Amino acid sequence: MSGRLYVVGLGPGNPDQMTPEARAAVDDATHFFGYKPYLDRLALREDQITVPSDNREELARAAAALDHAAEGKSVCMISGGDPGVFAMAAAVCEAIDNGPDTWKSVDLTIVPGLTAMLAVAARVGAPLGNDFCAISLSDNLKPWFLIEHRIRAAAEAGFVMAFYNPISKARPWQLGKTFEILRTQLPGETLVIFGRAAGREDEKIAVVPLGKAEPEMADMATCVIVGTPETRAIDRDDRPALIYTPRYVREDGND
Amino acid sequence: MSGRLYVVGLGPGNPDQMTPEARAAVDDATHFFGYKPYLDRLALREDQITVPSDNREELARAAAALDHAAEGKSVCMISGGDPGVFAMAAAVCEAIDNGPDTWKSVDLTIVPGLTAMLAVAARVGAPLGNDFCAISLSDNLKPWFLIEHRIRAAAEAGFVMAFYNPISKARPWQLGKTFEILRTQLPGETLVIFGRAAGREDEKIAVVPLGKAEPEMADMATCVIVGTPETRAIDRDDRPALIYTPRYVREDGND
Repeated sequence: MSGRLYVVGLGPGNPDQMTPEARAAVDDATHFFGYKPYLDRLALREDQITVPSDNREELARAAAALDHAAEGKSVCMISGGDPGVFAMAAAVCEAIDNGPDTWKSVDLTIVPGLTAMLAVAARVGAPLGNDFCAISLSDNLKPWFLIEHRIRAAAEAGFVMAFYNPISKARPWQLGKTFEILRTQLPGETLVIFGRAAGREDEKIAVVPLGKAEPEMADMATCVIVGTPETRAIDRDDRPALIYTPRYVREDGND
Repeated sequence: MSGRLYVVGLGPGNPDQMTPEARAAVDDATHFFGYKPYLDRLALREDQITVPSDNREELARAAAALDHAAEGKSVCMISGGDPGVFAMAAAVCEAIDNGPDTWKSVDLTIVPGLTAMLAVAARVGAPLGNDFCAISLSDNLKPWFLIEHRIRAAAEAGFVMAFYNPISKARPWQLGKTFEILRTQLPGETLVIFGRAAGREDEKIAVVPLGKAEPEMADMATCVIVGTPETRAIDRDDRPALIYTPRYVREDGND
């Protein structure tokens, strides 16, 4: 008898940004898989079992969760943010695609969550106010030349860019290289937002011009948003500046 | 004395996908602005006042809300989805940027919400599993040649694409033209997802190959996601196919 697997997005970390749907999935499941810091956020009951695992073993974690679900258990795979954005949903699908037929019979429910770029954007204004893209700077699973090609294409076409997985011990140079590329395509005044733990007590948000953006301003949990040349800062006396990208673009196409 | 303005994202419509933070903002406010169908979703108290307005008058609506807030009221501007994604947050920032100084003193809080592409993606699998972009097909505020340029650039660079505002009575041809462009750049088998009212009772989801995608499959509330050539469908006996874009890209850079 086949059980079920929820792949749940917790949002950026503030419990008030977790949806009731995600809460209900957590309440319903008995076995929990996921990166330990995400599991630690949950207030689980004594009868709920957590199976912590390393963040780098996504496919193995997906396989273990699918095994438990195929045995009839109610299983929850926890992601930060949204599971479909550089998180566990694609790894689970990949495992099902290449796994035994029993995994295809698992009742799979993907529960969306607030992804980091939305939470960070909301804290500073509306920097994603026009067309935008999301790029993971991790070159574990795709070659760096392709990431670089996408960065250049997005900047040239005037997309706001949100960068995920910007930096880590294993990926020390990618964000610096990204800024270097962008400085050849965008004015030095283009606004860059570093957002970490948006909406949480340990929130850290910084806005700097591209010319002064340094990779050290980010860590692995930071979402880095790079505006377009049209992205503006509104100075306010007693509050942080509001950052937004206008909805309109002039007829000559510059933005 | 200056009041406050919440710009709140309700998510795609299922109340279980609205965050507690959004609910708390709605409970706190006394005056409500927004497109009537969004306001109708709220169960407001008798002492809460709604000021309905037309969906096409975004700047006028933002100005009215800011006027009320500047007078000391607690005001809520309602968006579907996320207010920062092709919704009211950028219009409010634009109004503040060009408005009287008193608007800059308003205590502005932007409350993020689940945007349509995340909710639609979750219902079919993980189509946004690799780098992706979001493009509004509305050419009210930007010229069509720029939209076309962004579509071509995104397809060429291998981004999954999520299209917002795909079609309406005032914009009848833009989505058909988009498919026509994409057919020159992507294989006819590339998967296209039409998602409307994701997570609601009247949900409508369809998956077709690009070669058979027709603009009539969408209406103004549909989010259209176009995969990359790597986006895959996993057939399952008794369930809808799972659609996902793999996290990996082969070293030759094709995806």
